[in-house]
Amino acid sequence: MTTKNDDVKLIGAWPSPFVWRAKVALNLKSVKFEFLEETFAPKSQLLLESNPVYKKIPVLIHGGKPISESLIIVQYIDETWSSGTSILPSDPYDRATARFWAHYFDDKLFPAIRSITGAQGEEQKKLIKELGEGIVLVEDTLKKLSNGKDFFGGDQIGYLDIAFGSIFPWLRVVETLHEVKLVDEATTPGLVNWGEKYPKHDAVKYVQPEHEKLVEFAKFLIARAAASTPN
Amino acid sequence: MTTKNDDVKLIGAWPSPFVWRAKVALNLKSVKFEFLEETFAPKSQLLLESNPVYKKIPVLIHGGKPISESLIIVQYIDETWSSGTSILPSDPYDRATARFWAHYFDDKLFPAIRSITGAQGEEQKKLIKELGEGIVLVEDTLKKLSNGKDFFGGDQIGYLDIAFGSIFPWLRVVETLHEVKLVDEATTPGLVNWGEKYPKHDAVKYVQPEHEKLVEFAKFLIARAAASTPN
Repeated sequence: MTTKNDDVKLIGAWPSPFVWRAKVALNLKSVKFEFLEETFAPKSQLLLESNPVYKKIPVLIHGGKPISESLIIVQYIDETWSSGTSILPSDPYDRATARFWAHYFDDKLFPAIRSITGAQGEEQKKLIKELGEGIVLVEDTLKKLSNGKDFFGGDQIGYLDIAFGSIFPWLRVVETLHEVKLVDEATTPGLVNWGEKYPKHDAVKYVQPEHEKLVEFAKFLIARAAASTPN
Repeated sequence: MTTKNDDVKLIGAWPSPFVWRAKVALNLKSVKFEFLEETFAPKSQLLLESNPVYKKIPVLIHGGKPISESLIIVQYIDETWSSGTSILPSDPYDRATARFWAHYFDDKLFPAIRSITGAQGEEQKKLIKELGEGIVLVEDTLKKLSNGKDFFGGDQIGYLDIAFGSIFPWLRVVETLHEVKLVDEATTPGLVNWGEKYPKHDAVKYVQPEHEKLVEFAKFLIARAAASTPN
């Protein structure tokens, strides 16, 4: 049996975009939880035991039972605290559409963001161009799904907003680090508006770190990677 | 509005393990559908229009609306024809567990199978050993979830059976091509039993091609890859 509302823990770390998803979903459902900051120095015993396959955050622990993978966690939260705001749409086709694009974010956009940081020169320019094309697809999807409202979920934030909420701040980091524009009024006005509204939502506002803090963290990651790359 | 039971088409190809998933799910729900064999020579206009992002099979078209990605299609089928046999478990935690392992199959096992075919010598041996370790994890999972019954879903086949049904025949192909044992009575007796029972299930028996046909197809793919690799 699943217990409700009691004994909810989340293993995470502040810069992890995947952890933000779990936090926002819990906030949307007004679920109180204990946040366990993972320092990875070394990985905690609780993390290793809770997610022995991937050993990655986030892990939600509910009534002693662990759930891994951010999108699976968000769906679990939606199905477990089903009386609150719905995160996934109710119509099966709309749910399939939301799942498709969330998969696209993780399958295409995240790896693209990561590969840009590791690339240089012409290769980097090409990757930035490709990422830009992916973002235009997302703009089109937002236009279709939002019905002229602010969010992928329409008036309310939903599954795709939570999923994209992990991507958007890192797009802004790429823009700062590489002095490019990926999201702007000319080509992606819907996403510009989304990027202003989403972080102000009650369920989101204390979750997402400030831009400057993320840029600093990204620089730290780049420096660390450079230091460990053989010359 | 979603129409029910009428106008269901599936774009696929016989050797695609991802297409088998959609077929088995439709069979489980007794949904009549038209199968559109995709020859990729070139890709059909219908495929390009129905899945413009990935341009990949399977695509389910229901009442004119396309759904892509095999696991998303299976969930869509389960939610749309909800009166029939349930594919996903009803408990949210069990659903999360099923989604986690299905993700693991696609994220770890499929890429491992593919990389073995492309590798040689010591590298290939190492990859086969790693794949074997992954399969032992799956054996443990089957033992936990099946409650001593034949399937991941217990007495009935469910989401994880359908997902693993795409993997198992290709494990047998790897065994034949590379003269190794990945699934055997000593280390994975549950999977040996599963591999005998699953293909005989009414929803599966006309879906999965025979072993020899898959081996022949794998040899064709390997020869084609070798021919296009510069010396």
